[in-house]
Amino acid sequence: MAANNRYCVIMGGGIGSRFWPYSRTDFPKQFIDFFGTGRSFIQMSFDRVQDIIPVDHIFVVTNALYAPLVKKQLPMLPEENILLEPARRNTAPCIAWAAYHIAAINPEASIMVAPSDHIILRETEFRKSVIKGFEFVEQHDALLTMGVKPSRPETGYGYIQIGKEQVPGINEVKTFTEKPNLELAKVFLDTGEFFWNSGIFLWKASAIKNALAEHCQDVASIFDKGAGLFGTPGELGFIANEFQNCPNISIDYAVMEKASNVYVECVDIGWSDVGTWGSLYEISPKNKDGNVTQNNKACMFNSKNNIVSMKEDKLVVAVGLNDYIIADADDVLLICPKADEQRIKLIVNEVKSLYGDKYI
Amino acid sequence: MAANNRYCVIMGGGIGSRFWPYSRTDFPKQFIDFFGTGRSFIQMSFDRVQDIIPVDHIFVVTNALYAPLVKKQLPMLPEENILLEPARRNTAPCIAWAAYHIAAINPEASIMVAPSDHIILRETEFRKSVIKGFEFVEQHDALLTMGVKPSRPETGYGYIQIGKEQVPGINEVKTFTEKPNLELAKVFLDTGEFFWNSGIFLWKASAIKNALAEHCQDVASIFDKGAGLFGTPGELGFIANEFQNCPNISIDYAVMEKASNVYVECVDIGWSDVGTWGSLYEISPKNKDGNVTQNNKACMFNSKNNIVSMKEDKLVVAVGLNDYIIADADDVLLICPKADEQRIKLIVNEVKSLYGDKYI
Repeated sequence: MAANNRYCVIMGGGIGSRFWPYSRTDFPKQFIDFFGTGRSFIQMSFDRVQDIIPVDHIFVVTNALYAPLVKKQLPMLPEENILLEPARRNTAPCIAWAAYHIAAINPEASIMVAPSDHIILRETEFRKSVIKGFEFVEQHDALLTMGVKPSRPETGYGYIQIGKEQVPGINEVKTFTEKPNLELAKVFLDTGEFFWNSGIFLWKASAIKNALAEHCQDVASIFDKGAGLFGTPGELGFIANEFQNCPNISIDYAVMEKASNVYVECVDIGWSDVGTWGSLYEISPKNKDGNVTQNNKACMFNSKNNIVSMKEDKLVVAVGLNDYIIADADDVLLICPKADEQRIKLIVNEVKSLYGDKYI
Repeated sequence: MAANNRYCVIMGGGIGSRFWPYSRTDFPKQFIDFFGTGRSFIQMSFDRVQDIIPVDHIFVVTNALYAPLVKKQLPMLPEENILLEPARRNTAPCIAWAAYHIAAINPEASIMVAPSDHIILRETEFRKSVIKGFEFVEQHDALLTMGVKPSRPETGYGYIQIGKEQVPGINEVKTFTEKPNLELAKVFLDTGEFFWNSGIFLWKASAIKNALAEHCQDVASIFDKGAGLFGTPGELGFIANEFQNCPNISIDYAVMEKASNVYVECVDIGWSDVGTWGSLYEISPKNKDGNVTQNNKACMFNSKNNIVSMKEDKLVVAVGLNDYIIADADDVLLICPKADEQRIKLIVNEVKSLYGDKYI
């Protein structure tokens, strides 16, 4: 049965620096329970696939640093399903390793690859879309990416322009487009031809291996050296020696923008990458003054449209603040206008230059 | 020798609610080392008199709650010199008790009464002024208050208008004036006749007892009931029973504004009552952007004229904030425009109504 060949790879190695100081190198965004629901981003990522993919077919690829966090937050995950990267090398090497590993276990495998730190509000629709995507890639030699129907002229996302429909809801890809300016984003929205690039992919293990071989020899050649070792006790030693030699390259750049067998599944699943404080603000419930205070004790006077993140039980009192991020993380307090959130990465660098890694 | 009859009473029972959340009911302003010098306000108040008054002539009157803090911060103070009020009753009952207590020990005593939470920058000048004041009250039946030469048209202080000069630098009092508006404060400054009411008093114990008897029988009659008990083991039981029956009344209202033998010593001692975040801001060293960050690790971007108080080693990053108070006290964070600092007392009440005493 095809379903027995289905796997999921959750990528959980990012450091989430745009969410500093809440997200820290030693406790990044994907492990945080931002919404106070009791489940972190990575736990929610796991939860939403476990009904359609058996637990022992779910893999988490993460940095070796985060092994204890993954084990603690996903105790039901078999330990051998946690692939620990010895170095940070972006998505292409991460996806390549998972594909080689799973293909060695099951050459007929089909794989969904998903980020660990996104939000999907319409989970039933998501699961239907995943199943439809698996069926497509099992029947076609295809690299399938999920394109999310845009709900607003978002300038923070990449877009995919769709081409000819292959089966209902799955189209050829005409172009991948970087983050547009607002004017262009409005045009994208109006045409109905552009979808947000979600970073969720489906393919057969063999298909992505072939695509890497064809379009990204820099990566494929390294993993090819380990042929025969994947799925054996020799794999870890091989990875420990070779993984760091991979180039730092994204799967979009390495494969998706080059391959000819790329398709997009057009979905409407309530997706957000929650890449910034602003996007967290957008998707969070607000009080009558437009403040997002999550589970915090917050007394806001003459203050509107702020997003507040404090550690449990800390009281924040704000007077006369509008459109700010107020993020308190024990040893760091950040107060920054939402409009200036692109500065946060620069601020992290500045703090690093002043204080080393202490506050990073 | 007259100096052997000199005493100092430091009033240290306030709760400093205008400095919330840094100042807390269980650790109020006078016990805080605001400037990171290693000495709290009350320690500095003690330090600045100990060269001119023997330690066993220095008394601290405070609320019973704060006995452990006083003992810890002033370990050299004899324990019997800490007078513990069983209730909060403003300055007149506090001063009355100290006067009755000291008069019982030494009927010839002269006393300087000083708040515990003010700043005096010119300590040598202050000590000279204290000695001159003692000499005056030892030679005259006088209630002497220190009037500070104003350096700016401050609207947050009370003023004393001086009358005829008695001895050089010591004048009769023409009027006591409440906090003026800015226009009036400018006139006060220009005339040269108005001095800030510092709340530092000098008098013989007998003189203040006489004044209380004449002008504030509500208080005097209570302490008169304890005649014969002050300075004996019976005093504590008497205070435990009777102190709470005193009216809540300030010494200014009870005596100073009524008595005819009130004089003002005109001093220039670098005094500030540091009654508000704004006044702390004014007297604190500022960086080139006008930010007061004390000993904190602060990265301020596009931010001017703020005052920041964080617990040691906490990093604050602020972007685009001007003229704010940023005060982090472990379990409470306050972000409030300096111009709105008069709201802080109301905020404390609001927080109390929401969360009880937890954050107060």
